Amino acid sequence: MTADLVLREIGVDEFERAWPLFKSVIAAGDTYSYPPDLDMAAARAMWAAPPSRCFVAERDGDVLGCYMLRPNQPGLGDHVANAGYMVAAAARGQGIAGRMCEHSLQQARAAGFSAMQFNFVVASNTVAVRLWQRHGFHIVGQVPGAFRHASLGPTDIYVMHRHL
Amino acid sequence: MTADLVLREIGVDEFERAWPLFKSVIAAGDTYSYPPDLDMAAARAMWAAPPSRCFVAERDGDVLGCYMLRPNQPGLGDHVANAGYMVAAAARGQGIAGRMCEHSLQQARAAGFSAMQFNFVVASNTVAVRLWQRHGFHIVGQVPGAFRHASLGPTDIYVMHRHL
Repeated sequence: MTADLVLREIGVDEFERAWPLFKSVIAAGDTYSYPPDLDMAAARAMWAAPPSRCFVAERDGDVLGCYMLRPNQPGLGDHVANAGYMVAAAARGQGIAGRMCEHSLQQARAAGFSAMQFNFVVASNTVAVRLWQRHGFHIVGQVPGAFRHASLGPTDIYVMHRHL
Repeated sequence: MTADLVLREIGVDEFERAWPLFKSVIAAGDTYSYPPDLDMAAARAMWAAPPSRCFVAERDGDVLGCYMLRPNQPGLGDHVANAGYMVAAAARGQGIAGRMCEHSLQQARAAGFSAMQFNFVVASNTVAVRLWQRHGFHIVGQVPGAFRHASLGPTDIYVMHRHL
């Protein structure tokens, strides 16, 4: 079903193609801590400007998913990658997040990272947690109530990690 | 011994007073992931420009310690504070880090935060780990090898947290 999905890196000047998807995901307030009313310039600076790199998953020219890859820390921690993934609501359940995750692991290895860490996986997002576990990530931390979920209120977040 | 220690907030324009201390701490490469050769402008942007707030601990006009307080996440995670502390090598063992920690907890409460999280406590820094534990923090996560310690090599880091 995702055979014709194309994953490719975009430049900062192309971020506006990913913006409608990004905007709809953060507006929901259930998976990312970004302010739900964040503007495009701020999103672009965090996801597509160096040292962040932004990738999109497209089918027939439609952006169905996007992800960001960057060092999780500067300097003496920059061997650990960080990534974040978003999938359009209408395109969920098609394996797009898993495809992007595998793509990001390859990109991270190619860039010389030796591990990948997620800092803020919302515990109530069980589909994502299980997906990252299937892709080799382990829960290495749990912070109580660190996310104000739009409907669930204070919700724990997980720190997840895997070696590359 | 620290009776005459003065703790106060500084503005971004005063950060140069904290810079020699900051520079010497990161040059050691044993507690912070910042590039050991980070320049003052970059340090100032991270520690003293909004939303970060920078405080110094002074005695007789000498800056013996400094700390940074900020939201750990934007938006839906901005009820959790983050802080980082530095003490001049010549001033260690005098309780200055503990004084700054207590000060930061008060400042964080006054600013409306309901918890504080440290994302990157180097596991080999046992003096700091025990100090934060005495000040109410718990280890809620451990990331393997996330820090390239200048002399010890790959070293685990802890995520530490307390409610306010």
